[in-house]
Amino acid sequence: YDYDGPLMKTTVPGPRSQELTKQLGDIQNVGAVNFFCNYEDSRGNYLVDVDGNRMLDIYTQISSIPIGYNHPALLKLMTNPNNLSTFVNRPALGILPPENFPDKITESLLSIAPSGMTRVQTMACGSCSNENAFKSIFIWYRNKERGHNTPSEEELTSCMTNQAPGCPDLSILSFMGGFHGRTLGCLATTHSKVIHKLDVPSFDWPVAPFPRLKYPLEEFSRENAQEEARCLEEVEDLIVKWRQKGKPVAGIIIEPIQAEGGDNHASPDFFRNLRNISRKHGCAFHVDEVQTGGGCTGKFWAHEHWGMDDPAEIVSFSKKLLTGGYYQKDELQADKPYRIFNTWMGDPSKNLFLVEVLNVIRRENLLEEVTRSGKALLNGLYELQAQYPGLLSRARGQGTFCAIDVRDAATRDRLLLQARDKGMLLGGCGDQSIRFRPALVFKEYHVHIFLNIFNDVLAQN
Amino acid sequence: YDYDGPLMKTTVPGPRSQELTKQLGDIQNVGAVNFFCNYEDSRGNYLVDVDGNRMLDIYTQISSIPIGYNHPALLKLMTNPNNLSTFVNRPALGILPPENFPDKITESLLSIAPSGMTRVQTMACGSCSNENAFKSIFIWYRNKERGHNTPSEEELTSCMTNQAPGCPDLSILSFMGGFHGRTLGCLATTHSKVIHKLDVPSFDWPVAPFPRLKYPLEEFSRENAQEEARCLEEVEDLIVKWRQKGKPVAGIIIEPIQAEGGDNHASPDFFRNLRNISRKHGCAFHVDEVQTGGGCTGKFWAHEHWGMDDPAEIVSFSKKLLTGGYYQKDELQADKPYRIFNTWMGDPSKNLFLVEVLNVIRRENLLEEVTRSGKALLNGLYELQAQYPGLLSRARGQGTFCAIDVRDAATRDRLLLQARDKGMLLGGCGDQSIRFRPALVFKEYHVHIFLNIFNDVLAQN
Ligand code: FES
Repeated sequence: YDYDGPLMKTTVPGPRSQELTKQLGDIQNVGAVNFFCNYEDSRGNYLVDVDGNRMLDIYTQISSIPIGYNHPALLKLMTNPNNLSTFVNRPALGILPPENFPDKITESLLSIAPSGMTRVQTMACGSCSNENAFKSIFIWYRNKERGHNTPSEEELTSCMTNQAPGCPDLSILSFMGGFHGRTLGCLATTHSKVIHKLDVPSFDWPVAPFPRLKYPLEEFSRENAQEEARCLEEVEDLIVKWRQKGKPVAGIIIEPIQAEGGDNHASPDFFRNLRNISRKHGCAFHVDEVQTGGGCTGKFWAHEHWGMDDPAEIVSFSKKLLTGGYYQKDELQADKPYRIFNTWMGDPSKNLFLVEVLNVIRRENLLEEVTRSGKALLNGLYELQAQYPGLLSRARGQGTFCAIDVRDAATRDRLLLQARDKGMLLGGCGDQSIRFRPALVFKEYHVHIFLNIFNDVLAQN
Repeated sequence: YDYDGPLMKTTVPGPRSQELTKQLGDIQNVGAVNFFCNYEDSRGNYLVDVDGNRMLDIYTQISSIPIGYNHPALLKLMTNPNNLSTFVNRPALGILPPENFPDKITESLLSIAPSGMTRVQTMACGSCSNENAFKSIFIWYRNKERGHNTPSEEELTSCMTNQAPGCPDLSILSFMGGFHGRTLGCLATTHSKVIHKLDVPSFDWPVAPFPRLKYPLEEFSRENAQEEARCLEEVEDLIVKWRQKGKPVAGIIIEPIQAEGGDNHASPDFFRNLRNISRKHGCAFHVDEVQTGGGCTGKFWAHEHWGMDDPAEIVSFSKKLLTGGYYQKDELQADKPYRIFNTWMGDPSKNLFLVEVLNVIRRENLLEEVTRSGKALLNGLYELQAQYPGLLSRARGQGTFCAIDVRDAATRDRLLLQARDKGMLLGGCGDQSIRFRPALVFKEYHVHIFLNIFNDVLAQN
């Protein structure tokens, strides 16, 4: 069900896209709109736009399309009359779940649960997943602090007007360059770009440096280990400092690979040590797999590469999982109902799709495919950076979750547009990186289509 | 497509619901689960559970089902093959919208835009709608403060670590008893129940009293006007006080009827005066219609009852609108792309349903039906409270958005369970209220079915 290559009819955005952008501009800010799409005609790895251009999609709706466009298994699901009512009647899952809810969750999310976790809470997007995970962490932390006793009258009263002790001065430690969403709680842990944060009130929460490593990692292991040690030391200092400030760190949130922040990697050792620090100081360890989860690193969860039995207290997800949510260890589950709650608590129609996506991943061995394509992609990037040393550097990746740096931001932006006009849809991240975020059905021959065309683009520069 | 009345086979939850609750309990906190539903067999105003009980649903998934279960118009939409790809391929709307997006938005959300508003931003739920509305308000306020000049170097640097001036100490004024969601930003403006707020860090933002009126409003107009004047005075005091504290009020958020907080009404005069106060102090006025919007008050938006040409800077919605989002005045739209942004920015499959829902509302004159049913319901409640003065009081409502108070919380909770066992699904709100939240297809004869059965329940108490 895939096309056999890109096919370009106009530059992008073409005339029809420009017309629609103008129309939408009367209703919304359209500064971020790239072009308009024809999703009906899109298939597999190819996104078709409204001017009939067909592009190899290596960005996949900001990394959120798991098995390509219009996958037959998903279309088939839609034609099953038994499924219609799931789409038409969205329930308030927290109070009135549908009969098949426990089974669907068991079949889908629990079948891929991270090590040590048997509980999962669905949510509707990455932001509410992280916001509610933070709330679970704060509730858990305060229950520990008060020895699981009933809250005091003063806590009950003060919380109604946002004041301590009911609304305690607790904090979440995050990392410079991290991205965890844009609602106010999440945004207080996001530190990737000024434009995300400027003018929005925030919390005085500690921000640790994320290791800035040299690539390829194997070649710089000694220097990289030093850099990681420096960051870990800073984490411990911040935990102590914020405790002294009266704003104890209840949790640490981190991405296994910083994605929006520029595809920054760290070693399994770094994460294992960080996990130990969190244990030592009684903070919950929250691994945000919203962008890394779902198979793109060659394992279902990126944290599996750390090889730990007890990787975290909480693992959050969204995007390629189609539903948001988070796994948690038993002790993190809120002690009472309605503490973690909202109207919809997710969307069962997304769970339906997820069951099918997981079937396809298993049936078609897509994790192995990703590992294979990823190897070809990274090797191709190594070759290109050797060929264009003034232009490209720092190729890096795990699975197809790859990135490469370009000389400067302006050149990076130009390369992205030139590649797009040749039928390659790519995304930027960080200050001067290109990130690769294909679907799991991106095969080795797609890698070669990409490398050939990208080579042409580079030769022009 | 409606059933002709409730039909009960077991008490609720029945054995099958209890079994499933136990199963789900291994995965999630199930303390809030009422029972499990058979959504396939539910129709119109009737929700069917897994034990074959059929209940008249006057709570509708926390007020989020607009035109009843399995409405034929929505089922038909699902069988149109042209619509399939909208469900299967969820786009990143902010960068790659589908071709029909501007048309669908114009046909649906813009066709019901509040007075003075031509811009709408879709979001996925009520919480991200309010969170992003707050961000729009903060951005607008800071741009005014800096005279629309470029931000300083210090602002750009400080915001990356959550510090002022880049992350300014601005606030949103909200009302005691208000509910605006549970993510950390929203939660700082929510003050309805302890359980929502305890243990979660918050912002030091001002909380004004919401008028506590006597019902029926017409009979107590002089006392009520005094109470409203007292609250308005307090609002102005708080705005001044928070400005002096260095945490200026950038916006005021309010529900036209406080819903979760106990169905508290205020007069059109109160809202008009509050709107003037917001103008006088340069704060944005944000009307949260997440629960009141969508027709249940007899007008599409509850704020239409105020009769104002310029009711607000921002109106947010979700629930019965199926998609979340907010309308805004031109000047509130963020000045740059990517300031208000996330992966999905809503869900076009929900917009598809909304178009159909609006068609049904118009075709079947549902707003008139709501007005008619609402009148019958409120009159019925007046009669019941006259008949059971020791048990019921303070009947109130607009359209079918009605409520009545019960002697105390324990009696209220008991009445809800007794009514449920007789096939009436109702919800509580506030400390001791019952709220009525039927779908827009709740007709006068449904009101009478309800009143008859409720009368039986009351006679037992
Ligand atoms: S915050 Fe996640 S869907 Fe609204």
